[in-house]
Amino acid sequence: MSVDGVRALLFDTFGTVVDWRGSIARQLAAEFADSDPAGERDWHAFADAWRARYQPAMEEVRSGHRPFVVLDVLHRENLAATAAEFGLEDLPQERLDRINRFWHTLDPWPDSVPGMTRLGRRYAIVAQSNGNVALMVDMKRHAGLPWDMILGAEVVGYYKRRPESYLRAAEMLGLEPGQCMMTAAHNDDLATAREQGMKTAMVLRPAEHGPGQTTDLTPVQAWDVVADDMEDLAAKLGL
Amino acid sequence: MSVDGVRALLFDTFGTVVDWRGSIARQLAAEFADSDPAGERDWHAFADAWRARYQPAMEEVRSGHRPFVVLDVLHRENLAATAAEFGLEDLPQERLDRINRFWHTLDPWPDSVPGMTRLGRRYAIVAQSNGNVALMVDMKRHAGLPWDMILGAEVVGYYKRRPESYLRAAEMLGLEPGQCMMTAAHNDDLATAREQGMKTAMVLRPAEHGPGQTTDLTPVQAWDVVADDMEDLAAKLGL
Repeated sequence: MSVDGVRALLFDTFGTVVDWRGSIARQLAAEFADSDPAGERDWHAFADAWRARYQPAMEEVRSGHRPFVVLDVLHRENLAATAAEFGLEDLPQERLDRINRFWHTLDPWPDSVPGMTRLGRRYAIVAQSNGNVALMVDMKRHAGLPWDMILGAEVVGYYKRRPESYLRAAEMLGLEPGQCMMTAAHNDDLATAREQGMKTAMVLRPAEHGPGQTTDLTPVQAWDVVADDMEDLAAKLGL
Repeated sequence: MSVDGVRALLFDTFGTVVDWRGSIARQLAAEFADSDPAGERDWHAFADAWRARYQPAMEEVRSGHRPFVVLDVLHRENLAATAAEFGLEDLPQERLDRINRFWHTLDPWPDSVPGMTRLGRRYAIVAQSNGNVALMVDMKRHAGLPWDMILGAEVVGYYKRRPESYLRAAEMLGLEPGQCMMTAAHNDDLATAREQGMKTAMVLRPAEHGPGQTTDLTPVQAWDVVADDMEDLAAKLGL
């Protein structure tokens, strides 16, 4: 089949492997349970607003307007702005620091660990994430993710979708791009990986952004594999 | 005890976690079984000679006389020189390339995987190795090593014993040096780590260099922990 020769699966993480939106909302609800006993605040909306600042913040770095800083730093700046937006600007700095680390303890989608474990029988299982090493190591230990290697953004030196991010990842693994298969829930991530010569697998995550999701509901190109979840991907690859 | 506050164990790999000498000799003996049916060649001597070129080759990089290149490249150059030394200079390049990859499939000491798995219950288990990512990922999958993260030399950008190697590893993990414990069979590795503020654990490997070993048989400083193997280290840390 078309994935002959693939040696490593490179996984996008936020949204593809872990449920950032539900995990952030759950942790915020627990954090503010005392001050919001009736549960009236919409923590999913907070998570969405925090995440909405993610791509613009990285774009400052990708475009060269700002020297490279790790995602923990961008998340922290974006948290301060989001807290102000939601009337929480008076929270102590230490508490904001702690809330920022909620990204270190995101929960996986239920199929992620069993599916990736099956895939690991044949392929190297590699995180190709914009998350920094400290964040990704904590997440691995929290969620039990079977990473063989974490290629965080500061490891390869570039944020996705910079082409160098994909090319450097393949080089560090000692592989040609065509021996790597980018595995993601996002069409634009796969498109950039394909442009660098990688194989592509789309794992559909229609609830990443909640019930009203309008993006990435279907493949926009004929990716090499399209799967409903990680278990389905393993099955489609004969594992 | 003195290791309070430690969050991550940073492991030297060659000699400490895996038995490079025995593994290289075994793979060479299998490789040349047809041309040396009586088993008269001393493949342990070959492994020793190959390894003897390791520190001088890295020193060229550490000293700044040579730009950074990954260990696979240094191993390959050193293999060509060692093959000539042993009258094997006429081997085809492709065969030397394959032999060079024997470093990717080193076997662990018998206690390494069970001991490190126990240690992983409390600490992040991190490779702080001069091996490059491709080598270390292959070794992880071959040997079943429970790494949470591989900080290969090209990840931190420096070979040990450059102080920056240790400091950058701690920084990438989001930890202070004192929250990291260097775990190694080699006194000089531990000494440099301690100078950067790290905790230190010596795992004794008196057979790393074979029966005639004269170095690193005992601790030369009062390291925070001294253990007979990885299982003993786990026990001494209460795991």
